[in-house]
Amino acid sequence: MSDRTALVVSAHSADFVWRCGGAIALHQAAGTAVTVVCLSYGERGESAKLWKQDGMTLDKVKAARRAEAEAAAAALGVSDIRFFDLGDYPLQMDRAARERLVEAMREVQPDFILTHSKYDPYNTDHMHTCEVTLECRMIAQAWGHNPGETVLGAPQVYLFEPHQTEQMGWKPDVFLDISSVWDAKRAAIECMSGQEHLWAYYTNLAENRGNHFRRNSGGQSGGRPATHAEGFQSVFPRTVESL
Amino acid sequence: MSDRTALVVSAHSADFVWRCGGAIALHQAAGTAVTVVCLSYGERGESAKLWKQDGMTLDKVKAARRAEAEAAAAALGVSDIRFFDLGDYPLQMDRAARERLVEAMREVQPDFILTHSKYDPYNTDHMHTCEVTLECRMIAQAWGHNPGETVLGAPQVYLFEPHQTEQMGWKPDVFLDISSVWDAKRAAIECMSGQEHLWAYYTNLAENRGNHFRRNSGGQSGGRPATHAEGFQSVFPRTVESL
Amino acid sequence: MSDRTALVVSAHSADFVWRCGGAIALHQAAGTAVTVVCLSYGERGESAKLWKQDGMTLDKVKAARRAEAEAAAAALGVSDIRFFDLGDYPLQMDRAARERLVEAMREVQPDFILTHSKYDPYNTDHMHTCEVTLECRMIAQAWGHNPGETVLGAPQVYLFEPHQTEQMGWKPDVFLDISSVWDAKRAAIECMSGQEHLWAYYTNLAENRGNHFRRNSGGQSGGRPATHAEGFQSVFPRTVESL
Amino acid sequence: MSDRTALVVSAHSADFVWRCGGAIALHQAAGTAVTVVCLSYGERGESAKLWKQDGMTLDKVKAARRAEAEAAAAALGVSDIRFFDLGDYPLQMDRAARERLVEAMREVQPDFILTHSKYDPYNTDHMHTCEVTLECRMIAQAWGHNPGETVLGAPQVYLFEPHQTEQMGWKPDVFLDISSVWDAKRAAIECMSGQEHLWAYYTNLAENRGNHFRRNSGGQSGGRPATHAEGFQSVFPRTVESL
Amino acid sequence: MSDRTALVVSAHSADFVWRCGGAIALHQAAGTAVTVVCLSYGERGESAKLWKQDGMTLDKVKAARRAEAEAAAAALGVSDIRFFDLGDYPLQMDRAARERLVEAMREVQPDFILTHSKYDPYNTDHMHTCEVTLECRMIAQAWGHNPGETVLGAPQVYLFEPHQTEQMGWKPDVFLDISSVWDAKRAAIECMSGQEHLWAYYTNLAENRGNHFRRNSGGQSGGRPATHAEGFQSVFPRTVESL
Amino acid sequence: MSDRTALVVSAHSADFVWRCGGAIALHQAAGTAVTVVCLSYGERGESAKLWKQDGMTLDKVKAARRAEAEAAAAALGVSDIRFFDLGDYPLQMDRAARERLVEAMREVQPDFILTHSKYDPYNTDHMHTCEVTLECRMIAQAWGHNPGETVLGAPQVYLFEPHQTEQMGWKPDVFLDISSVWDAKRAAIECMSGQEHLWAYYTNLAENRGNHFRRNSGGQSGGRPATHAEGFQSVFPRTVESL
Repeated sequence: MSDRTALVVSAHSADFVWRCGGAIALHQAAGTAVTVVCLSYGERGESAKLWKQDGMTLDKVKAARRAEAEAAAAALGVSDIRFFDLGDYPLQMDRAARERLVEAMREVQPDFILTHSKYDPYNTDHMHTCEVTLECRMIAQAWGHNPGETVLGAPQVYLFEPHQTEQMGWKPDVFLDISSVWDAKRAAIECMSGQEHLWAYYTNLAENRGNHFRRNSGGQSGGRPATHAEGFQSVFPRTVESL
Repeated sequence: MSDRTALVVSAHSADFVWRCGGAIALHQAAGTAVTVVCLSYGERGESAKLWKQDGMTLDKVKAARRAEAEAAAAALGVSDIRFFDLGDYPLQMDRAARERLVEAMREVQPDFILTHSKYDPYNTDHMHTCEVTLECRMIAQAWGHNPGETVLGAPQVYLFEPHQTEQMGWKPDVFLDISSVWDAKRAAIECMSGQEHLWAYYTNLAENRGNHFRRNSGGQSGGRPATHAEGFQSVFPRTVESL
Repeated sequence: MSDRTALVVSAHSADFVWRCGGAIALHQAAGTAVTVVCLSYGERGESAKLWKQDGMTLDKVKAARRAEAEAAAAALGVSDIRFFDLGDYPLQMDRAARERLVEAMREVQPDFILTHSKYDPYNTDHMHTCEVTLECRMIAQAWGHNPGETVLGAPQVYLFEPHQTEQMGWKPDVFLDISSVWDAKRAAIECMSGQEHLWAYYTNLAENRGNHFRRNSGGQSGGRPATHAEGFQSVFPRTVESL
Repeated sequence: MSDRTALVVSAHSADFVWRCGGAIALHQAAGTAVTVVCLSYGERGESAKLWKQDGMTLDKVKAARRAEAEAAAAALGVSDIRFFDLGDYPLQMDRAARERLVEAMREVQPDFILTHSKYDPYNTDHMHTCEVTLECRMIAQAWGHNPGETVLGAPQVYLFEPHQTEQMGWKPDVFLDISSVWDAKRAAIECMSGQEHLWAYYTNLAENRGNHFRRNSGGQSGGRPATHAEGFQSVFPRTVESL
Repeated sequence: MSDRTALVVSAHSADFVWRCGGAIALHQAAGTAVTVVCLSYGERGESAKLWKQDGMTLDKVKAARRAEAEAAAAALGVSDIRFFDLGDYPLQMDRAARERLVEAMREVQPDFILTHSKYDPYNTDHMHTCEVTLECRMIAQAWGHNPGETVLGAPQVYLFEPHQTEQMGWKPDVFLDISSVWDAKRAAIECMSGQEHLWAYYTNLAENRGNHFRRNSGGQSGGRPATHAEGFQSVFPRTVESL
Repeated sequence: MSDRTALVVSAHSADFVWRCGGAIALHQAAGTAVTVVCLSYGERGESAKLWKQDGMTLDKVKAARRAEAEAAAAALGVSDIRFFDLGDYPLQMDRAARERLVEAMREVQPDFILTHSKYDPYNTDHMHTCEVTLECRMIAQAWGHNPGETVLGAPQVYLFEPHQTEQMGWKPDVFLDISSVWDAKRAAIECMSGQEHLWAYYTNLAENRGNHFRRNSGGQSGGRPATHAEGFQSVFPRTVESL
């Protein structure tokens, strides 16, 4: 799997940890270079604990969130994490921001992309990220966009797990065994000191997705013994040589 | 891929040819033993041309349809084709018929199953087949059903392409490259002398699905050059070790 | 429009009045012979008022419901109403009952069929009727079913309006102007003395569907001035020579 | 809340524990009499561990499953648990079985009903149970069904949580705080000695649903501090006097 | 119910009357302070009758529409109605307009919010209002947005009834009994002199929703005798202590 | 059919050929004046072949694409084709561009409009075009938008066929017989020299849609013998005087 690359587009700086930290660690460990783009720090909307401290400022929150994200990335084995610092609640990607994401796609030439679900009435930043990622993928494929650059192929886009799946209409069609890298994901999760109330939540979830993995990989009579898993929804059909 | 097995559950004796003849030929050629179960001959509802002949009887229609299906199976490299002769329009699977399908599942122990789409307002036999196949898969997995027999694992069920996909709510998530076995599929199609009006239709379709394959395997800038393909909709999520 | 025929499949003996009485009267007035099949009298489940009377019996309820339905049919100009008397709550169509409906389809050779919506958690008789009507349409089309009989073509199936449309997932794609026959429909409605609480309801509905008709036939700036309308959901696509 | 009653329709004898044990214990504790109907023991399909023992027979499995279910019911405070013993994998409810369920509905006169989700490709017994429950609710409401008996009102039907929610198209619109009875639910879960692999799963789930409860009851800035919750999908709209 | 507050976000100045006038009057009468925000006057797109008069100007239309809305609000008992005057057809909420709505949310601290449906191919202003309301709710919840202000909790968002429900994919899960305030709603409706063609429509609708209320609150055998009702679709799941 | 008019809104300059060239030629031949608006030339994203040539510039690509589109329009009998030159990948319609489309709608006063499908994860320009067309239709209907101009009525909007229908959630409810103008459509297709790889694709498709036409216009027993067809999805319900 070496020579492969992947791109994660994360609306806020912690999303990549909860939602696909296992996939990142697993692929990075197998030689796939994973680039993580954090569009914002989640500084306004996902940092309540910090804002409850005296004397807090926007810059301090951003710095704290960045440090947490960098530590988590390191725990997952990621060396390429980029902060676009576009603001959150709402996240709004203007033409320049989109162009920057297109450039990242062309530079990385990912074999697959990971991003947010299509619908989220709780968090419109997540929907916006999904929509813009699809637009940028299209632009990056265009021969007439910055002619002379290498265009993007047709990488799969996997939508990672939102917080309340059923409310988002998210349906996983792939379960990934992350048992071998669970410790790394847990370590990354523990870097998120501002959201400690979610540590147990995402640990429970990984264990339960492990159960779903086993249900679908053989059921009662056998199957690979994954202890932890992550689920993803594919946007595009797969092309295969064998069923 | 040798040692793998597959099971096709076809409502009428020609369905397996149009809808997954390429998948059958491809896997059979690669050493996967494919068992085809034809629940009926399509003798009442899909044999108009025969019934327009003078002196036609139900037995003659069945015999003709069986001969066509056997020839098609041979063209696809299949040696195990079974005719349940359950009647069509409507196809109705009673307890005994379902038990027979359960037995076939346990005997074959398929790595994957191919059958009809969930919804079809034109042809309720197709819906019935899908529904019963899922029920039988569940029964075949039960340790308490004929205790002592080897239970079925958790094979994927792929829904093959219905005639008017959009009316059936069928959405392919997998395209299979059948270029290398297209000639075999076309030969099998030509065994269906009673439905000659569909030969060009399914040839056009295979070519256009080839286009869809190419669109998704790399787009304008590259990708595997499939000339013919078939599409499938997975019922269950996949379990993978890598994205 | 003369020489055309239509078939209404009504689960209970009053459904055809509320749900498509206008369509029946309109087409009958234009020379289309409309056959109404009442699968049951709604004797158990839709006759609460009768059952609250002393000394009521199943036969008395059926007779009363039949008389109401016949009067309503007459008010709509229908001369061919048939009572299959299959029982209700639940309505269950066995093989013989289905065969009888197939025969009616072949005899009538309808240009279009009207029946219930696909989904109804309040009333499973309605769902069952829709499902069986589609099955019977398929059988009636089969050359090998009672060979020698004239097979059915491919008539459109219109699903008429259920009681709480949004709960049934019913979406009208056709509004029919029934202004010219509204008086006949109201007269038919008033034949339903056992369900007087619904008279105002279906009058309100016809007026409001008239508003929807006007909204879609020209909006604020014009359009045909329908005062009353009925809505229908088509099961199959239309085939046209012009948009 | 005393004087209220509820009815749980469970396909297999353990379903009521995992899926709505908290709701049962909570309402029972508040004076609502909850009747649990187990349509089967899950003897064939959900008793793998038992069948792996030497000398196992169908009767022994049933007896073991019954004992577990009775113990769990006791742990939840339920005194009225009924075993219909209809068989599983597949569960098939014939006319007599449905009549029996109708009778239970009329006898109990539940203020609400709890049962399985509408769709489940893994387990057709679950779908069948949901479908039949809706049919029986309709029959129980009919004045002409066993005239003279008290008819059923219009109780809400809540669909409890299936094993892989997203694959079933199940979407919870209600979260119930079961914190106060969690210990009882856990005790009931531990009665299911044959399915010990699910204990942690459903504990994790209850904790995570507690998180969802808190997210929706006030979010970051407040809200009731539920530690455990269960989710339900309502079939019918609510009727209220205030939003 | 005193001490509660509610917020209505109405795209055009008449929407709040037709779509939730009953809910407003009912809650206001019970001591809930309801704030109505009219994003525009509907001056371009929903004032055809005014524009057909000679010498009409945009300012005159706005003034007339404002007067109507104020009169209607008074009829419903509302003392806090705000006109954002953002323009219609299309309504476009820029950053400043959104900020203004966020401020209103924080000031009012509503227990629930009422606004338009998610989809409306006839009227994109309605969709835009729903989308922006969800975004603003998210921003108002963010601790880092104008730090120091009291953040918004997690109020339910109810989507009120669009004009052609089935075309909008709107499905009510709540029916509210507005019988006691129907006269006030009708009085408010009659303030809308420019849209007299809709008075009967919305009266019919309220009566028919009353029927739906009764169907779901007890059916044939009982239930609260609402004569008029309004329907709503909840965006978020409820959190309850009892079913 | 003379005196009718139609408007096609095409995101890129070739879309109108592949997706509704038959409808255009058919109606134009029958006296309906069809106006084609090309929002962009598809110069960046749909001109890969041109960009692979040495010395290519944006202006050269646009000129080549315009010449192809004009030739195709001529082949279809269209005399009114307009190029808005708004740019592609991404196409972004600002207020002025939308105003221009509104003006075209009011000028043309189309009896029906043809445009792209609602959803397309491969090509967000297509989605954007659909969304903006619905918005502009609404604005064009508003009496207060440029008062004094003739407002638009309520024309049907037909969504033409996207490239991979199932991935777009596009479901045709109308099949149009284009047999008589197939030669013209093929001639127009052959004007698209930059996308020769799609000629066979859209020929196959037209033949297969002809098969679907025949399936729905009478089936095995008869029906109009269309050889080629196009499919469309209606956005709004139809208003009819007869079923």
